[in-house]
Order: sequence, then C-alpha cells, then structure tokens
Amino acid sequence: MASSPDKISPELPVVLILKPPEVFKVHEELFCQRFHFLRAWESTLPTDQFLTTYAQSIQALFCNSFTPIPAHVIRLLPSLRLIVTSSVGVNHIDLHECRRQGIKVANIAKVFTDDVADIAVGLLIDVLRKVSAGDQYVRSGSRIWSDFPLGYKLGGKRVGIVGLGSIGLEVAKRLEAFGCIVSYNSRMKKPSVPFLHYANVCELALNSDVLIICCSLTEQTYHMINREVLSALGKHGFIVNIARGSIVDEKELVRCLVQGEIGGAGLDVFADEPNVPDDLFELENVVLSPHRGVFTDETMWECYELVSGNLEAFFSNKPLLTMVHNDD
Amino acid sequence: MASSPDKISPELPVVLILKPPEVFKVHEELFCQRFHFLRAWESTLPTDQFLTTYAQSIQALFCNSFTPIPAHVIRLLPSLRLIVTSSVGVNHIDLHECRRQGIKVANIAKVFTDDVADIAVGLLIDVLRKVSAGDQYVRSGSRIWSDFPLGYKLGGKRVGIVGLGSIGLEVAKRLEAFGCIVSYNSRMKKPSVPFLHYANVCELALNSDVLIICCSLTEQTYHMINREVLSALGKHGFIVNIARGSIVDEKELVRCLVQGEIGGAGLDVFADEPNVPDDLFELENVVLSPHRGVFTDETMWECYELVSGNLEAFFSNKPLLTMVHNDD
Repeated sequence: MASSPDKISPELPVVLILKPPEVFKVHEELFCQRFHFLRAWESTLPTDQFLTTYAQSIQALFCNSFTPIPAHVIRLLPSLRLIVTSSVGVNHIDLHECRRQGIKVANIAKVFTDDVADIAVGLLIDVLRKVSAGDQYVRSGSRIWSDFPLGYKLGGKRVGIVGLGSIGLEVAKRLEAFGCIVSYNSRMKKPSVPFLHYANVCELALNSDVLIICCSLTEQTYHMINREVLSALGKHGFIVNIARGSIVDEKELVRCLVQGEIGGAGLDVFADEPNVPDDLFELENVVLSPHRGVFTDETMWECYELVSGNLEAFFSNKPLLTMVHNDD
Repeated sequence: MASSPDKISPELPVVLILKPPEVFKVHEELFCQRFHFLRAWESTLPTDQFLTTYAQSIQALFCNSFTPIPAHVIRLLPSLRLIVTSSVGVNHIDLHECRRQGIKVANIAKVFTDDVADIAVGLLIDVLRKVSAGDQYVRSGSRIWSDFPLGYKLGGKRVGIVGLGSIGLEVAKRLEAFGCIVSYNSRMKKPSVPFLHYANVCELALNSDVLIICCSLTEQTYHMINREVLSALGKHGFIVNIARGSIVDEKELVRCLVQGEIGGAGLDVFADEPNVPDDLFELENVVLSPHRGVFTDETMWECYELVSGNLEAFFSNKPLLTMVHNDD
C-alpha cells in the first residue's frame, strides 16, 4: 500500500504529510485508497527541499498536534489551500499565516473528548482502588489477599478539575455519578456550571483530595502544577494528568511521590515521552499509561472518517465537515 | 492487644468470633478496646467443645458471610441473643433457628454498595482501555508506545447487568454517565427503572457488548454464566464479575478467553479464591483483582462503626442500628 514519494499517482488527490499522525498509521490502507500521500518523513531530502520539489502539487496537508506548521513551511507551499489536523487544538498551526494565504483549517472537533474523559476516570479509580497494583499482585502468584493494602473510596472525594473545557466537563459529569464533589480552576468563572470555582490553582489544591489536569499546555500552564500546588494537595492527595506532561513540574511530582508528600498519581502523559522517570517504576501508588488518551478502535475510526471526509469535501468543492473558524 | 480465649476480661462485653472477618483484622485494636472477643479460631479445642465451654458467657456473635452459622451452632449457645454480620447478605445464618430462639440479627446495610459498584466500573474501564496492561507496558521499559494495541470506547457500549439489586443499580447509574446503554436481567422486571429487561440471561448476552455480574450466588445462579451465555456474548464481548466466582462456569470462561471466544474479562472474584486459574496469568485481555470489592479505608471504617455500634446498642439495651427483619 505504501506509495512512493517520487511518483505522483495521477488519479488520486495529493495530500502532504510531514510526520504520520497516529490515525494515519492505524488506517493507512484505507487512507491510501482515497488519497495519494506525499511522505516527507520517508524522503531522503531535507524537509524544505522536499516541500519545494513538490510545492506545486500540494493543495492539502494532513498533520496532528505533534507536528508544528509554522509560517515558513506554509510559505514554501504556495498552492496550499487546506490543513487538516487530527487534533482538537490548532495552536501548532500558524493561523495568522493561514489567514494571510487564504488557507482553510479543519480539526476533528470533539471526537476525542469522551475517550480522554474516560481514561481520566479510569486512572483515578485505578490509583485509588489499586487496580493495576492488584492485577500485578494476583499475577505474581500472591495468595494472601488480605495482606493487599486497602484502597480509597471515590464517593465523597473532593475532586478539583484544572481546566474546565469540554474534557473537564465530561470528567465532572462522570465523577458526579460516583458521588464525588467537583470544583474547578480556570481563568474565568463559568456562569453555566454548578461547580465551585477557584481562581487560584493552589487554593483549588488546598480544598481538593484529587486534582485532575484537563487544561491545554500553554506558556501560562507550563509547570503550573509546581511544588507549591503539590504541597497544597498534600500527602493524602492524588493527581491525575491526561493533558500534557509539562503542565506538571515532573521532577517535583516524582520527588513528592517518592517522599510520600502526595498520595499517588495516575499519569497518561509525561514531560519527555516515551521517557518516564525511572523512580516511578518502583512505586505502587502510581499508574503509568503510555499516552492512551484517545487510542480506541472506535475513536480512531471516527477520526479517520472525519479527516478523510474533510479532505474529500475539499477536493470536491463541498463545505468542510469541521472547519476551524480562523478570524481575528 | 490479642486477648486469651481462656480468661474472660470482666469489664468488657463478651463477643464470640468463629473466624475473624476482614474488618476485625483491620480494626482489631479498636474493637478490642470496646469488647472482649472469644476467639474460637485461635483455640486448640474443637469448635463445638469451645462453644460448649464458653456457652454461658456468649450473648453476642460477630461473623461475616464466609462463616456459616447453622442451627447446630446456634443450639450450642443457649445465651445467644445477637448475631452481627459484617456483610449485607444474611443467608449464611440459619434465620429460622434465630427466630425460634429469639436471636436478633444485624447486618451492615448498604455500606458496601458504592465501593463494589466503583470497582465494577474500574474493572470495565481497565479491561476496555487496557489500563493495567498499559501500566505493565510502561514499567517494562517499552518505548514504542504506538505499538501498544488500541483499546475500546465505553460510550455507546450495550451493558447488560445481571442482577439489578442495589449494586447493579449503582453500576447502571455510573455507566449512564459514560454514555453506555444499560439493560438487565433479573427474575422479575423492575417497574421503577428505565432500563430494558431481559427475562433470559442468554438473550441479554446476545444483545450486550458487556456483561456485569452483580447478582447473589444462589442455587439458581450457580454457573448461570455458562458456555451458552458466553457464546451469546461473543468474541467482541467483555465480562466483569464483582459478585461471586461460582456464578460463572470458570472453566468455560477461561477456555473462552484463551481461545478468543470472548473479548476480555475484569474479575474481582474467582471460584476457588485465592486460587486463580494459571491460564489467566498469560492473558493481556484480563484484569485480575484480589477480591477488592469493599476494601477501602473509608468503608472498613464505616463497617467498624456499624458493627461496634450494633454490639454497643445491644449491650446497652438500645435499638440496633441495622437490624435485619426476620419474619416469615
């Protein structure tokens, strides 16, 4: 199924990929039946030279949030008219340059929201109730089950959600069904939600048994969960991170976990993936997840349909399915 | 803190224990500050002889559902007036004989419901989203995270609850927040619930992606989840059991899992605990839990307070906190 970057199949619309998004790897065969992909990552040419070589044929580009699309890349592609990203966020794309050049942007809307919220709750139950540790305990052949340590109850826990966007709201909805008491931190109080708002994340931590990190990584949120916040959360407090590793000061988090200054953690994301701090491997009060947030069969399928549907719509001059409004 | 069964402390009310319930082990020190326990399990005497020896001093007995209290034990204890069990169910106690002898029975009401429902949902998320397998994957040092297999989405899954008692209802409430579609099997349709009822468990399995076993173990439910039901559930179907191991034909379940005839399982209970079939240890699509259903810090504390509160009430001639109504 792999198509060579050197020959362009005349029958299929041409789409540039700089680095393959996960959904492309999962559904490559299907994608390649509908589009001819120019595979910059497989070329021996330097990227800029690759782009210059094929610039005239490239009207559409497919990326995800791990591949920045800066202005200088966009300027190398004068025929570019569409960028489709298999992510919700679009801040890896220079939207200003897209506007200048009349390039449309499509994302995958809220396809990922439920899966990420589910894994957040799964990691919380796992770390509180010691599910993964219990699984290892049984598999190790241990037979004195009464020696296995007690877990902690979900009901009544004060859960502080850091960043109450669409994922945070879905996490809140699920945790209310478990009898958790939800509050949140965000820059602005949201008038339409029934949860207590804390303008200060440290104050949220001080009043929470659990912090769940659901915000975007920005300059403002980089290392927002620092020593002070972790110390406010305290030694009986738990943290779940399903957002981005660098929102948490990972060195401080590891130190707090090793020294028992917080109770435990469920982590789907890390500062330098796939590198995970060695010290965490020794701990039974952490659950380590290989960035599984959105990786379900069903969601990868939905994502494939939305990406290919947007490309198809573009090449047939139909309205995009999930266009990002890119106004000032 | 251990008190000898040979000498009865005159100051504290005397309570018989045949085998120590978990909550007794967890809070033994506190229990022993309030009551003098006669420890049949520590005695070198045969149980009947132990009971006969101390019969006159025994007005109260503390047990859990793993210690049967049959008529012949009750008849050996003519002064017995109260049985407190740290379980919801009381069918391990000969209630007919209790009635005959005017013995009151107290249980721990619904203290355990939420914890068991939580672990059911936790096991379901874990097996669908491969949380424990992912934790092992990261801990093993694997760095090619994109090689880790996709999980499955919770939203939209048709979940069949086998036994819609208080635990089943709490499981349903939680799973609705995840967008699951709940139906159930029970002998009688429950008029007050909004879920689809199947009178036949096989038909429920046929129309479900997931079965969650929440019923009691009785003669009728023993091996109810047999080859036919598992086959109806099918190779993309998942099973979660938080009730009792023997409700499922475990040999058939293991065979179906090994041969890929069902999709996976999350098991908190087994037919012959703590023995777990060896074949399960090799599988990545099962989560094995050492019967953790109710073992949280908070619930063990609540259970201690309820058991000791019932004993205290009895010895002070006050009404029991959670008396079981034992009428014909």
